[in-house]
Amino acid sequence: MSFEKMWLNYQKNEKSQVINRFMLGQSIYVCISEGENQENRVIRTAAKELQEAIGDILDTHVDIYEKIHESVDECLEGIILRRTDVLKTPDAYHVKERDGLLSIEANNGRGVLYGVFDLIRRLQCASNLKRLDVIETPDNPLRMLNHWDNMDGSIERGYSGQSFFFKNHELCINDRTHMYAKLMASVGINATVINNVNVKDSATELISSRYYKYLQVLSEVFADYGITLYLSLNYAAPIDLGGLASADPFDSEVIAWWEQKMQEIYTHLPHLGGFLVKADSEGRPGPFTYGRNQAEGANLLARAIKPYGGTIIWRCFVYNCQQDWRDYNTDRARAGYDYFAPLDGEFLENVVLQIKNGPMDFQVREPVSPLFGAMEHTQQILEVQIAQEYTGQQRHVCYLIPMFKEILDFKTYCGQDEDRVSDIVSGRSYGQKLCGMATVANTGNDTNWTGHDLAGANLYGYGRLSFNTSLSAEAIAKEWIQRTFGLDPEVEHILLNILMQSHSTYEKYTSPLGIGWMVEPNHHYGPNVDGYEYSRWGTYHRADHLGIGVDRTPQGTGYTHQYKEHNASMYADLESCPEALVLFFHHLKYTHELKTGKTVIQHIYDTHFEGVSEVETMIQEFKRLQGRIEQQVYLRILDRLEEQLESAREWRDQINTYFYRKSGISDKHGRQIF
Amino acid sequence: MSFEKMWLNYQKNEKSQVINRFMLGQSIYVCISEGENQENRVIRTAAKELQEAIGDILDTHVDIYEKIHESVDECLEGIILRRTDVLKTPDAYHVKERDGLLSIEANNGRGVLYGVFDLIRRLQCASNLKRLDVIETPDNPLRMLNHWDNMDGSIERGYSGQSFFFKNHELCINDRTHMYAKLMASVGINATVINNVNVKDSATELISSRYYKYLQVLSEVFADYGITLYLSLNYAAPIDLGGLASADPFDSEVIAWWEQKMQEIYTHLPHLGGFLVKADSEGRPGPFTYGRNQAEGANLLARAIKPYGGTIIWRCFVYNCQQDWRDYNTDRARAGYDYFAPLDGEFLENVVLQIKNGPMDFQVREPVSPLFGAMEHTQQILEVQIAQEYTGQQRHVCYLIPMFKEILDFKTYCGQDEDRVSDIVSGRSYGQKLCGMATVANTGNDTNWTGHDLAGANLYGYGRLSFNTSLSAEAIAKEWIQRTFGLDPEVEHILLNILMQSHSTYEKYTSPLGIGWMVEPNHHYGPNVDGYEYSRWGTYHRADHLGIGVDRTPQGTGYTHQYKEHNASMYADLESCPEALVLFFHHLKYTHELKTGKTVIQHIYDTHFEGVSEVETMIQEFKRLQGRIEQQVYLRILDRLEEQLESAREWRDQINTYFYRKSGISDKHGRQIF
Repeated sequence: MSFEKMWLNYQKNEKSQVINRFMLGQSIYVCISEGENQENRVIRTAAKELQEAIGDILDTHVDIYEKIHESVDECLEGIILRRTDVLKTPDAYHVKERDGLLSIEANNGRGVLYGVFDLIRRLQCASNLKRLDVIETPDNPLRMLNHWDNMDGSIERGYSGQSFFFKNHELCINDRTHMYAKLMASVGINATVINNVNVKDSATELISSRYYKYLQVLSEVFADYGITLYLSLNYAAPIDLGGLASADPFDSEVIAWWEQKMQEIYTHLPHLGGFLVKADSEGRPGPFTYGRNQAEGANLLARAIKPYGGTIIWRCFVYNCQQDWRDYNTDRARAGYDYFAPLDGEFLENVVLQIKNGPMDFQVREPVSPLFGAMEHTQQILEVQIAQEYTGQQRHVCYLIPMFKEILDFKTYCGQDEDRVSDIVSGRSYGQKLCGMATVANTGNDTNWTGHDLAGANLYGYGRLSFNTSLSAEAIAKEWIQRTFGLDPEVEHILLNILMQSHSTYEKYTSPLGIGWMVEPNHHYGPNVDGYEYSRWGTYHRADHLGIGVDRTPQGTGYTHQYKEHNASMYADLESCPEALVLFFHHLKYTHELKTGKTVIQHIYDTHFEGVSEVETMIQEFKRLQGRIEQQVYLRILDRLEEQLESAREWRDQINTYFYRKSGISDKHGRQIF
Repeated sequence: MSFEKMWLNYQKNEKSQVINRFMLGQSIYVCISEGENQENRVIRTAAKELQEAIGDILDTHVDIYEKIHESVDECLEGIILRRTDVLKTPDAYHVKERDGLLSIEANNGRGVLYGVFDLIRRLQCASNLKRLDVIETPDNPLRMLNHWDNMDGSIERGYSGQSFFFKNHELCINDRTHMYAKLMASVGINATVINNVNVKDSATELISSRYYKYLQVLSEVFADYGITLYLSLNYAAPIDLGGLASADPFDSEVIAWWEQKMQEIYTHLPHLGGFLVKADSEGRPGPFTYGRNQAEGANLLARAIKPYGGTIIWRCFVYNCQQDWRDYNTDRARAGYDYFAPLDGEFLENVVLQIKNGPMDFQVREPVSPLFGAMEHTQQILEVQIAQEYTGQQRHVCYLIPMFKEILDFKTYCGQDEDRVSDIVSGRSYGQKLCGMATVANTGNDTNWTGHDLAGANLYGYGRLSFNTSLSAEAIAKEWIQRTFGLDPEVEHILLNILMQSHSTYEKYTSPLGIGWMVEPNHHYGPNVDGYEYSRWGTYHRADHLGIGVDRTPQGTGYTHQYKEHNASMYADLESCPEALVLFFHHLKYTHELKTGKTVIQHIYDTHFEGVSEVETMIQEFKRLQGRIEQQVYLRILDRLEEQLESAREWRDQINTYFYRKSGISDKHGRQIF
């Protein structure tokens, strides 16, 4: 299985060589403590990574010298990697150059490794390291990936080939596994869940003797790069695996079974971080089956895992997926808040709630979940999805970091000074320690890892952003382009434009004004306006001859008032409601005039023609890169862009035709609608 | 694998015993010719079948005596089975009783067998056999079943369990196979195709040494009951099986390959009737690939099989399944006629075109295919579908014989005295000899054979009707009820009502006024108004805010003028167009007034409320049968009726809501629409 190296495909960089010639012929001094321990192994990884990168980028060999107990203070030049007590925050690092002496210091091994990758980034981007003096502290304690990989090798919502973790119900551990760990560590990822949250069949048995040995080997590979292994868990494991009659969290047999199971697990997998749990969701078993609430359900596992320092990450994606489309009162958007907000304070300290960014499901546009800011006494992380389930499935380019920035910057008005989503999940608002971000991953065994080469920017960007939420989407994209494609300014200019507009373009030609869905059921690719309109999933647009949208104000489902003020009023009041979300919150007539002066229907027509036109321009622009980027990659991207164009036209024509036929209102500009 | 005996589940019948007491203690005299031959074996089957039936129904043992060359003319009483030259038509029979002497005579063994089953039917229904004197001549030479069974055991469009012909890519031959042959022979079926028309993978290899031995055994089982085995064939077999580079009918290597292959096949399978071919249809390979027309494609096979007396049955289901929904000019309905009508006279004599009843695909209501009456010089059979793909999938009751009667009775105005569809496919119009009817079968390995017990009436009815197209749907249903459930008049009354109204009820709550489709794509169960509206399948309703329907008049796609006059004008003229089909032929405003005085939209609302209400009544009525039919069967039927009701409500609400939302026109009676 071959693979590419993404942004770590080091190339000799003459510009960097010239700027940083003081690095040539240097040595690396690694300060380690006595004996074998976790910190040492990561620091050793850091040294080797730096050696390799300097070798490739600056085309010079550096030696590594390990020092135990020895002082390095007498060093006059060279590169020193060491732990220090000065930095208090785990994973933070200090990179400093003074008079030819470059030091990377951190509170822990992981911090040192991150410092090294920071340095490597600067080398790739030809930054001047002279007089560098930077301290970076991660915003989020947890920076996780969630892989929805199944043990048969398929990936749920995977658009980049098959799993590289599993094949034929066995674990795969090979060069690609190492490259994965290295890539992820290079952007600050410190935790990963390797199996699908929908845990069935052989995946249930991951916590059994059949798999411990392999998992332990895998966790060691990850540990070298400071990444903690987590697993998804089947809440019905006491039944499916243990042969018990129940999985009731109040059943003493169940409690005993989990206690024994956790002891067994941690005997074999001492590095394991804990478990991710999707319970009572979309057919998955959970505490509701036994009349217990979500906290009671989660705490069962948290108590059992506590002796081993493990964490239970509990997803909040709980809603009624057997809704009747005729029912206008039930509102799926309300479900997360209704189920979880009243339980604030009831979850044990080693339970972390994992909250999807929006109340629905990773649409191209939806409001931020009102759960953020509603749970002061609960550990929580923000879940986003770089697997482009609803955003073009890595066949369309859709750079998601601008959207994630909007989410992180959203003010919750939760009453704290620092009240943005980024403040809450980082622990700044309420002081939580187990918090951060998780994303559904977009990787697979395609040689380029992410199917669409440009989707690599989402993988890279998620990591960088989760470490430092104040980075701009544009800065991240620039870094990624330079590291992946080199320093050609024309390449940077064109790809940056494509990435930065891609989300807006995708939004334009798909479902309008925040209404969401309108996709083909099941696989979620391509348009189908009524695809979910008469189904059980609670995702309706309620379009009729006169108008469209869901009234979620107090006159409707009341969802707006799950938000704190002023957000509640902002959304409920049509005047102040952001128009990008207006159909999410309001049912409007097609003839309703937006602030742009356009009617809703004309807005739909215009944006759909614009969206397609923008893709056409993207392709024209991209074609200027022929010969400037590797031909194979160029053709791969071009192929996807052309598919995107065809798909965008299908979106435009179906959406416009649907609303034209339904409303009977013509396009003002007389463009072709069918 | 257990199974029930359907209408051949003989029960002791006291009424029949009393009426026909002259039969008690009789013997059967079978006149056979010298040596082993096909006629003898079928006559022997006939004798054994009669012996069994008399034994069970009249509760009396009868002996069988075989006579060779001996005269039976001196017999004064008893039952005589024999071939006679008096009847000229194959499969016709003469059953006559005079003074205690009952004779069954026919031109061939199959006729004798049919005469026996006629007699058995009369015994089950307690008819008086005294003075019986009936000659029955089949209307259709070919009375075929098409099984869409795949070799992995699945059945395409199968709603009655798995295949009983195939399992794990092997043939199954067991008691069920025998019962199948007996059931089919009992209603006059004389030919069957056991594998799916979509021939792929291992099914391609049915014509290879891997399977000959088993097919030969199967064909012998069928031969005992006068049933000829046919197979579906992969037109690309020269490539897939023969390793040639082409399947071009003009390629000498391809011609030679087929000649050799047919010789090989008939060496191993001397009873084989021939092949059914789906070419150039829905992704299947065919002559179009090589720029040859359908006649050139079919004649290749016909020439190769001719030395062995075999037949090539060539399906006319050829259309562009990559249509663009934006294209209003292309009309899938036209395709069959456009491709085949110009080729009349070009097909060899042993090619039979198999024409679906309508131009689309087995909808609950569509017009008759204009190919009927357009091909004077071509052998042809009518294809219907008792597999209820679009008519409730054997979860809804939908007795199809009334619809088949309408199709058969349709006057084509082809210029012959006898010009109905039934006249054409029987050979009466043009004198064809290889013609008749075929149906896609509705059987599977469910114990009751057809999933829904009441779907047995379609299997029974198809056989009876294909033998005698002048039987009424009601008479057939009565027979079937009596033979299946016994002679309780209450059972007969209620089930007859349910069956006879079922098609009309189904039509009411599903797609209105002949427009068709509006089903969930792929599996075709349940409503989805726009399910096919923006897809590539050529099946559009073109509903907008003002109206619905497809203009197929000369002002539209011109499809109407594929019919002969007066049909062409009848359909093209809104005044004379049958309203049940009006949206198939015309695009109408919702406010258009039908002959009933109702508007189109009100008609839609009314029929949908009525349809559901009729199902409710059906269930009420059916419940009166508890205790009158076997409890297990009662519960099985009730279960399906309840599912039908739920599904009918979903149809009603989705259709009504869709059109209400689209038109903005309220129901006059203010009933609930969502």
